[in-house]
Amino acid sequence: MNEELRNRRFVLKRRPESGLRPEDFALENAAVPDLADGQFLIANHFASIDPAMRGWLDDRPSYLPPVPLGAAMRAGTIGKVVASRTDAMPVGTWIKGINTIEEYSVGSAGDGNRPIDPTRVTSMSQYISVAGGASLTAWVGVHRILMPQPGETLLVSSAAGAVGSVSGQLAKRLGARVIGIAGGAEKCSRLTQEFGFDAAIDHRNRDYAGMRAAIREAAPDGLDMVFENVGGAGLDAALSCLAKHARIALCGLISEYNGPAVGARSLKELIFRSGTMHGFTLLDFPDDLLPATDALLTAAERGDIRFAEQIEHGIENAFATISQLFEGGTSGKLILQIA
Amino acid sequence: MNEELRNRRFVLKRRPESGLRPEDFALENAAVPDLADGQFLIANHFASIDPAMRGWLDDRPSYLPPVPLGAAMRAGTIGKVVASRTDAMPVGTWIKGINTIEEYSVGSAGDGNRPIDPTRVTSMSQYISVAGGASLTAWVGVHRILMPQPGETLLVSSAAGAVGSVSGQLAKRLGARVIGIAGGAEKCSRLTQEFGFDAAIDHRNRDYAGMRAAIREAAPDGLDMVFENVGGAGLDAALSCLAKHARIALCGLISEYNGPAVGARSLKELIFRSGTMHGFTLLDFPDDLLPATDALLTAAERGDIRFAEQIEHGIENAFATISQLFEGGTSGKLILQIA
Repeated sequence: MNEELRNRRFVLKRRPESGLRPEDFALENAAVPDLADGQFLIANHFASIDPAMRGWLDDRPSYLPPVPLGAAMRAGTIGKVVASRTDAMPVGTWIKGINTIEEYSVGSAGDGNRPIDPTRVTSMSQYISVAGGASLTAWVGVHRILMPQPGETLLVSSAAGAVGSVSGQLAKRLGARVIGIAGGAEKCSRLTQEFGFDAAIDHRNRDYAGMRAAIREAAPDGLDMVFENVGGAGLDAALSCLAKHARIALCGLISEYNGPAVGARSLKELIFRSGTMHGFTLLDFPDDLLPATDALLTAAERGDIRFAEQIEHGIENAFATISQLFEGGTSGKLILQIA
Repeated sequence: MNEELRNRRFVLKRRPESGLRPEDFALENAAVPDLADGQFLIANHFASIDPAMRGWLDDRPSYLPPVPLGAAMRAGTIGKVVASRTDAMPVGTWIKGINTIEEYSVGSAGDGNRPIDPTRVTSMSQYISVAGGASLTAWVGVHRILMPQPGETLLVSSAAGAVGSVSGQLAKRLGARVIGIAGGAEKCSRLTQEFGFDAAIDHRNRDYAGMRAAIREAAPDGLDMVFENVGGAGLDAALSCLAKHARIALCGLISEYNGPAVGARSLKELIFRSGTMHGFTLLDFPDDLLPATDALLTAAERGDIRFAEQIEHGIENAFATISQLFEGGTSGKLILQIA
């Protein structure tokens, strides 16, 4: 069987120096490997395209080891078991795990791939959009780091994105007042109309001073919380508007990943306001994964939280899809449909 | 009486734009005011000269309101009551408080001035060096923010300074391994010889990469804790050497106070390592002031902790003394002796 199957793989060829270049990757074709005892073959259907991918490409560890040169690019994936030499993972099982962008991956017991229930969703892609890494990261950032109290004010950056839109909605459900930052009038309109944010700030055509003025107007008593996904001038402006004892969930700094960081020039505000900045990733909260997945799926079923997907099709479009993420033009959770 | 007394005052005339200029201040002579009921007259003996003063000079609040133009410069002071119209503060009482740099200040009940016990010290200046704001800040930073566990590694910046030298010694007493950063071979030698640090790193002639290499060599398993007083390239280098779940006590950023901040370009490390940065000031811990003062005085009496003083003499030297602090040439707690 395996000689007939061809496995197209999206492979890292060179480490990017700053921005991603097409020649850093290649689409390669390989044989599908034979399975050893205890292994299973996954046909990958969906890959989650995330800002964190940029950190995995550098030659020093981020929160995960670097992707090796010559290996397929790491991604959170949804797939189906199509061959198996273990009773623990029978053919037909839908699974979710951190695998690679290729048509077929080999799994084995204990590698983190876990079965998911197809009856909980209308499309398996919802295990990426509703209950994928981005939504789960939003969940732990809100429920484990920020812990909003009713009446507190939260600022969310990249608020129309996959993490931002969910974190804002989760905080709203806990009684917080939520202000979102996004790029462009259309995204800002979605924040208030679709996601129920209390206010939206368009970062386009606003420098540090303009952002600061807009935040002050939206939050005259200061920011009790910041859910930070971007960094740069927006983070500096947020720092300059902190309320006393503010807490910042530092989830991402996408403006800094592809080049020299501008740097946070307003850290002294953290001293003046006795604020706290918590860096975190989803991996810090392994015990929350299953209950948070269930909570997010339930919220989606009930319509309590709105989730947006942007699905791009075909492994041959992997590079273009990843590049989109760093250009700021995406809307909703970015997903690559492999098959 | 008051018509005969002249009160020399160190007055803010203009707000500095970046670095301090002599013309931003003036030494003025005024009459000593008469006392109303409930007031007392303080003859100021010592003023604490601290990096935080820079923040008080800008026209927007730091953690305290700006010093008004035309007013004497704010400082932590030690003085003696020389006239009184309140039984609560009889003539002869030594007091400590946040007052201003002038020969005579007027106090009143509830203004934060509190009596201090002259029998606990060999010089009243020790209420600034041993048990002043800098030492107390070190105490709360170590005992309330960092809470070192035995065997953990701490990096202290500006480690030969008033806050750094005390925080390193306090952490040593709790069983931490302590690495200090200071400028020049002489200060570095004092860190290990006088203050008992485990290692010292000279930041002179070291850029970001050089600092990072030196920290990695001194802390091959990474930094569990950072007591940050400086910012800039040293903070960036420290961020790049964090151990998982590292905590950073953000106490000061003296490299950024007098000009445009370079900015922390390595904040993403806080995400990668799930680290936490806590901005704080002494004012956050009012309940700790008295017990920490007692603990520090006791440690000094027993010789458990070494405290260094650098005393400059004469209110006419106030500007030169404050300027020294930002030039990095001081050694020990900088104190201005007014009388």
